Amino acid sequence: MQRLKLWKSGWQLLKLSFEGASTQVSKPSRKYSQGPSPFGLLFDIDGVLVRGRTPIPAAKQCFKKLVDHNGKYKVPVVFVTNAGNCMRQTKAEHLSQLLEAEVSADQVMLSHSPLRMFTQFHKMCVLVSGQGPVKEVAHNLGFEDVVTIDMLREAYPLLDIVDVDRRPKDMIPPTKGLRKIDAVILFGEPVRWETNLQLIVDVLLTSGCPGNDWNAVQYPHIPVLACNMDLLWMAEAKNPRFGHGMFLVCLENLYKKVTGHDLKYEALIGKPSVVTYNYAELLIRQQAEKLGWTTPVKRLYAIGDNPMADIYGANLYNRYLQTAHLTKGRPVEAPTESAVSQMFPSGPGRSAGISGAEDELPEGCSSILVCTGVYSKDQEELPADPTETVTEQKIFHGHRDFRFDPDLTQPSFVVDDVKEAVELVFHQEGWPLE
Amino acid sequence: MQRLKLWKSGWQLLKLSFEGASTQVSKPSRKYSQGPSPFGLLFDIDGVLVRGRTPIPAAKQCFKKLVDHNGKYKVPVVFVTNAGNCMRQTKAEHLSQLLEAEVSADQVMLSHSPLRMFTQFHKMCVLVSGQGPVKEVAHNLGFEDVVTIDMLREAYPLLDIVDVDRRPKDMIPPTKGLRKIDAVILFGEPVRWETNLQLIVDVLLTSGCPGNDWNAVQYPHIPVLACNMDLLWMAEAKNPRFGHGMFLVCLENLYKKVTGHDLKYEALIGKPSVVTYNYAELLIRQQAEKLGWTTPVKRLYAIGDNPMADIYGANLYNRYLQTAHLTKGRPVEAPTESAVSQMFPSGPGRSAGISGAEDELPEGCSSILVCTGVYSKDQEELPADPTETVTEQKIFHGHRDFRFDPDLTQPSFVVDDVKEAVELVFHQEGWPLE
Repeated sequence: MQRLKLWKSGWQLLKLSFEGASTQVSKPSRKYSQGPSPFGLLFDIDGVLVRGRTPIPAAKQCFKKLVDHNGKYKVPVVFVTNAGNCMRQTKAEHLSQLLEAEVSADQVMLSHSPLRMFTQFHKMCVLVSGQGPVKEVAHNLGFEDVVTIDMLREAYPLLDIVDVDRRPKDMIPPTKGLRKIDAVILFGEPVRWETNLQLIVDVLLTSGCPGNDWNAVQYPHIPVLACNMDLLWMAEAKNPRFGHGMFLVCLENLYKKVTGHDLKYEALIGKPSVVTYNYAELLIRQQAEKLGWTTPVKRLYAIGDNPMADIYGANLYNRYLQTAHLTKGRPVEAPTESAVSQMFPSGPGRSAGISGAEDELPEGCSSILVCTGVYSKDQEELPADPTETVTEQKIFHGHRDFRFDPDLTQPSFVVDDVKEAVELVFHQEGWPLE
Repeated sequence: MQRLKLWKSGWQLLKLSFEGASTQVSKPSRKYSQGPSPFGLLFDIDGVLVRGRTPIPAAKQCFKKLVDHNGKYKVPVVFVTNAGNCMRQTKAEHLSQLLEAEVSADQVMLSHSPLRMFTQFHKMCVLVSGQGPVKEVAHNLGFEDVVTIDMLREAYPLLDIVDVDRRPKDMIPPTKGLRKIDAVILFGEPVRWETNLQLIVDVLLTSGCPGNDWNAVQYPHIPVLACNMDLLWMAEAKNPRFGHGMFLVCLENLYKKVTGHDLKYEALIGKPSVVTYNYAELLIRQQAEKLGWTTPVKRLYAIGDNPMADIYGANLYNRYLQTAHLTKGRPVEAPTESAVSQMFPSGPGRSAGISGAEDELPEGCSSILVCTGVYSKDQEELPADPTETVTEQKIFHGHRDFRFDPDLTQPSFVVDDVKEAVELVFHQEGWPLE
């Protein structure tokens, strides 16, 4: 049998680029300031600080150095994860325990955190999909009228019947019905995908009234907002595990198979979308204020393990920042490539106004790739012609609505782990770490 | 918003064709025999005899007429369903109760029944996916070394972690491992699709050893055999429900997203594949023998509600029978169109030998579409240009590996329900029914 390993070639090609980039570690090609200048750190969590429930050893060592003897952070630190099936407070507590450094809820942003700014949806009746405290999460984000998948199952007991054991047994329970659903919010990967896939397709094909005929389908369907596009992520297993991006691949393809149409997203939120980095920058600014800093943060460093989420996102945001500075005084639009246009909601998040005056925006955002997660330096040799596979986009682990821009996958730096990443940043900026 | 309703146009176009075909009911264009000649009946179950657990009234009335005063069937009757998450005996008992006529297990074929003939896989270690008594089903079909998804989860406890509540809590349980898996058999839609999707992709990317690196991926992957391609089926709900075909759409797209390659099927079993009708014909022959018939069955009538499964399948089998008679004396190959070549296993099922000498093969198989299930006469008006949507294959509810042949979707007859179908057949054949 021919051994093609095509799936690997995408990573391999990226790896080559990254290895090129990593030479910058010893020979930095640019230096952003002559003396110490204010900067902030964005940490990804899975694959950088933890794998599953197991802390990555370098993480604890590195956070020891990041706080002073009073437990106060030396620079603004924000955790930017694409996880979304939990509350910020829970995540903060988990991180505090893990890193043995105090992490507060306002230092944590989950993939859905920017939904707080999507106020035009807050008064609508929204169907939420995910696991964990989805209803509470939605209410905390500002959504007032929330319907869960379980509520839908109860109101329409004949819809969810893939599981033979969950089908109505003797009496067919009455269909109670429910108010019309105006929009669908996909927080994160649910449990029992068949249930969520069936009910979401029912809602889309009935314009929010799953008791009606599919005949009444309208296209475009009611708005769908999705958080966390990560296809794969690293937990304890040696191979990557399925993330919410895989659920979205299923939903997109089932909708297309039934209707012939593309599922449309009103917004795609979470890394690598700019709206997410905009929000993270807002949190960095708040942390800087707490530290008593009076000058704005000049540079952000985003540390992550996923080339398609962390690196692509940081670089995309860097491009956005550069555009913002070039167009100073004019309203700042998101980068104009159609590749990313879908990343931006039509309302909030489209202008730099999200995070205040553009004067105060950082000059840039550097991306640092660690090798403790999805990406690994130790991957095997390249196939005969890797370019072919990438240029033909046979393997593309980004979201369907991204047009693959190879430039954006090149990290500013590649390091072994998060400790090395932090040491590198402090060295770059000329700040003492010890 | 523009109201396109494109998803419906496929059905609509079919409907037009069917309505044309249905004029044959009053003006039959052909008559197969001058006097009574032996024939057999193939009944689909869901959407024809039942919807969910609710019997369709016409079914009971019709079966009263089909048995004599001793409870013996007047003609050979076989039930051909794409359901697969149960045992034949269970299905037979359910039908007996429902139809108030005795149905024996050897009158029932489920989507996986033809796997009994795939003896080259019976000694391999096979991973089975589905719900209900999958292990028992596999053993009954002749598989000797069966691994279930649950066994895989237990042997590799780090793999299935989409459900936060099922992740290892404190101690990480040891990976016990398991023997190498040689092939994957997809019986029917499972529960917790995320679990099966993740583990099946793991098995395919590691050539059957999910404890190994994905790096070791080989393409083509180990054999995958899938039963039941039905995308949608009718239960009690007014809109169609997701069938195993939807699970296959997910699996195909996730595999492709990760690897860049098409998932390959070693065999696709169940309606509309010819191997299924070959097997059904074998069962009809056995029933005819039980009735003491000495002359071979001349014609089969297949009654179903799903144009893409029941009608397409019966017509494809009819084409196969015609080829068989034209090539009498030579080994009979399945129809040669590439559209259906994937429907045939490389070993058994490829020649008419399955069901005995070709001399005894029926002359043809007629397809009868009822309107109590997936297909309905009452659907709304056609869009402006329905042909476009079908020719562009924007909407195609058949399996990915079918090349859509519109000729094969035209039923010989369209009737309201199963009672009308049976009356029509007896009338056609000049047999008394009362």
